[in-house]
Amino acid sequence: MNEAYACLTERFRRIATIGECSAMLGWDSAAMMPPGGAAARADQLALLAGLGHQALTAPEVEADLHQAVASDAASDPALDAWDAANLRLMRHAWRRANAVPEELVVALAKAGSTCEKVWRTARETADFALVRDHLAEVVSLTRQTAAALSSALGLAPYDALMDGYQPGIGADDVAPVFAAYETFLADALPRAEERQAAAAQPVRPAGPFPVAAQETLCRGVALRLGLDFAHARLDQSAHPFSGGTPTDVRITTRYDETDFASALMAVIHETGHALYEQGLPSAHARLPVGEAAGMAMHESQSLILEMQAARSDAFLGWLGSACHTAFGGEAAPWRAGNLARLLRRVQRSFIRVEADEMTYPAHVILRFRLERAMIDGSLRVADLPGAWNEGMHGLLGIIPPDDARGCLQDIHWYDGAFGYFPSYTLGAMAAAQLMAAAREQVAGLDAALGQGDVAPLLGWLRQAVHGVGSRLTFNEILREATGRTLDPAAFQAHLRARYLA
Amino acid sequence: MNEAYACLTERFRRIATIGECSAMLGWDSAAMMPPGGAAARADQLALLAGLGHQALTAPEVEADLHQAVASDAASDPALDAWDAANLRLMRHAWRRANAVPEELVVALAKAGSTCEKVWRTARETADFALVRDHLAEVVSLTRQTAAALSSALGLAPYDALMDGYQPGIGADDVAPVFAAYETFLADALPRAEERQAAAAQPVRPAGPFPVAAQETLCRGVALRLGLDFAHARLDQSAHPFSGGTPTDVRITTRYDETDFASALMAVIHETGHALYEQGLPSAHARLPVGEAAGMAMHESQSLILEMQAARSDAFLGWLGSACHTAFGGEAAPWRAGNLARLLRRVQRSFIRVEADEMTYPAHVILRFRLERAMIDGSLRVADLPGAWNEGMHGLLGIIPPDDARGCLQDIHWYDGAFGYFPSYTLGAMAAAQLMAAAREQVAGLDAALGQGDVAPLLGWLRQAVHGVGSRLTFNEILREATGRTLDPAAFQAHLRARYLA
Repeated sequence: MNEAYACLTERFRRIATIGECSAMLGWDSAAMMPPGGAAARADQLALLAGLGHQALTAPEVEADLHQAVASDAASDPALDAWDAANLRLMRHAWRRANAVPEELVVALAKAGSTCEKVWRTARETADFALVRDHLAEVVSLTRQTAAALSSALGLAPYDALMDGYQPGIGADDVAPVFAAYETFLADALPRAEERQAAAAQPVRPAGPFPVAAQETLCRGVALRLGLDFAHARLDQSAHPFSGGTPTDVRITTRYDETDFASALMAVIHETGHALYEQGLPSAHARLPVGEAAGMAMHESQSLILEMQAARSDAFLGWLGSACHTAFGGEAAPWRAGNLARLLRRVQRSFIRVEADEMTYPAHVILRFRLERAMIDGSLRVADLPGAWNEGMHGLLGIIPPDDARGCLQDIHWYDGAFGYFPSYTLGAMAAAQLMAAAREQVAGLDAALGQGDVAPLLGWLRQAVHGVGSRLTFNEILREATGRTLDPAAFQAHLRARYLA
Repeated sequence: MNEAYACLTERFRRIATIGECSAMLGWDSAAMMPPGGAAARADQLALLAGLGHQALTAPEVEADLHQAVASDAASDPALDAWDAANLRLMRHAWRRANAVPEELVVALAKAGSTCEKVWRTARETADFALVRDHLAEVVSLTRQTAAALSSALGLAPYDALMDGYQPGIGADDVAPVFAAYETFLADALPRAEERQAAAAQPVRPAGPFPVAAQETLCRGVALRLGLDFAHARLDQSAHPFSGGTPTDVRITTRYDETDFASALMAVIHETGHALYEQGLPSAHARLPVGEAAGMAMHESQSLILEMQAARSDAFLGWLGSACHTAFGGEAAPWRAGNLARLLRRVQRSFIRVEADEMTYPAHVILRFRLERAMIDGSLRVADLPGAWNEGMHGLLGIIPPDDARGCLQDIHWYDGAFGYFPSYTLGAMAAAQLMAAAREQVAGLDAALGQGDVAPLLGWLRQAVHGVGSRLTFNEILREATGRTLDPAAFQAHLRARYLA
């Protein structure tokens, strides 16, 4: 019996339970809270974060970690693969938490919170100058944080930031993948546009689409996709997200009565995240090894539903019928072919969250380059707008008319989140690779999709991804499931088949 | 500068902030949570309760309390009335928290939780035997808790339990008031019934009353009563309640499409609780002195709206119009006279929560007697059903046909809450006394009620009750506001005027 390890598991379960309280209150803030509750809520969340941090940095933890490793080395049998991975992840979490001095954590949290507030106005008024100095402060504190993490973890500073979102993947893994995609895009995008222009133009179904009808449809689709509503809720918020805990997932969407698709596709996306959480190994609940394997893998699970499954020809046939039943009107616009032309349209655009799946990586590549340069000091915050516009021009041949549609559009940097952006595109690529493998390994997958039935796909994901938790890393999961670590060829093949065939 | 006192205020603010997290998650459990979230939620709430308890019983607290009192005695100027009361309340909270051994706290929480689960089935099947031994265990542990509190606080065991809900009021205060009410009721109830039988019979407005229309009405009425929705929400739950925090109050109701009044009167009741919370002194937020002055005072604030103001002739005129606008139909049933006959009807009945304001105290008197006897050991749990039925017969002349309509109807005892019940009737009496004083002191109060306007009443309550927080006790607040400590004559006068005049 490894007593030190037992103490650690109890401690980490307590820390995770505190995190669950934060997750629930975070969901409430976005989906339920009246505006007047914001000040008290900030205090509540800060207090919980502090309690979690204290529990992770308490002096006993270091001793327990040493003792647990020593006991494991001395005992026979040793910890099994789950516990061994768990112990590794605990050490890693402990190292990260202890690497950064408390004053720096507090200073960055404060600067991020202030900057984010100013950013809201700056974005609204497209006035980068308003937020520039705040962002510079956030970048400066983030560089200090990255330096502290870097020496503690033995990673490059930017990689140490990425590690917080996607453990085990660094800039050297990402850069060549992104470079190859840039080359692919330069060739593929004009061809896809040409082909699109030559094809029949899509017909927009006539609205309006009442919120009540959309909500019923969204709920029905989420249920059909396998979301267990005994352990989940669907609500509304300004920006769709998935939150809560594995046994009580809270997903949200937003409804636009002029658009039948935006809320629906958001629900499918968030359902992908939710299914991942609901499929995590419950025997290891509240332990690091029982958590999702990072944000890129999480994004792969939302995108495998939203982009791979739901936008497949087969599924669009079923989805069109479901929409027709929900909204009525002419049948023609709801047919699969028309829906495909509507929902699989490439378009060079300014806003990342509205981008199609082919141009989306360009938005991420730009941010990856710029944030790396800000962290290594080669790009000054004052020069960000110019660098952004130049980068957009290089990647997509377009220049934002203002900074609101440029470097002010995303909350991430202004809130202190550097190193997150690559997750989106790594996730998209992993989703394509997983889908290709699932198609090879699961008979009747597309036939089922034609019935709106993702059960065969989900069953495979449950075993290959969800049930693994964090016992394996992102690349290990891909290798076990598909035979290869991340291989961007699958994503390119997917895009070629969908947009160039 | 009293440094120890400053440390204590910081600690108590932290404890209160943990309590806010619990309050929010408690609201979520009742109003939002899918059933599958219950197990994780129980862990979350237990963890938060433990963290709060730890912070209150930490060894530094005792030293700080001693030091704060000593510093105060030695310094000039001494703490002001707010801080002095705050320090007293901190000591009291600390004493309560330290009086009961941790094992006993845990054992009682566990026994209560188990018993409450079994009680749900027992009530459904009207089978007291099923839950008897569980209740006996809860009573046994509660008696041990009461004994521990008793020696720490210098109060009789039952009073030490009451003190947890309504500080400063004990059985010796309550018993004579309840005895006098019993005498009053024996005379007044038959006369009220006689008068009611001889009067015109009420006409029920024809339903159904769609949930959407009821909700719009409830929201409009709460707003009209002064509820600030920038700091509040109205939702649905199985049992109406008021929760959350002073800057983010969450009230709930439940809708019955065959009954226009139940959800509406519940919303008025919960709005009374919510207005109290919203009116607490914000300068003392998160400190004991800034909290409501106990559950009896809290109940007085819900009942002064629901029973005193909203059921007044004047307000019913306005409310009938609002209902007519909301639900349409014939005008006659919505007139004040008919509404008064519908909503001010005395009736000997089995269920406390459905009782009218005249018979309600009989339900409370019965529970007060029985729980006191269980705590002093003179009533065995096995004899509870018989004692209940005998008591009901003595008080209201009726005998429940089964225990579901008898001693199984309320959750309180099964969940370990002894000493709470008197608060309901103390609150009703305080509400009558406060209303009588408000009518004397505030010009135009009833004229305003005739417009659905409680602003004059609310303004008076803000100053006389809400803004006082816990700087004064229940009886001190009443004395300052009305010239007398609790005087049950006001409640009897109110009932005489309403039911016998």
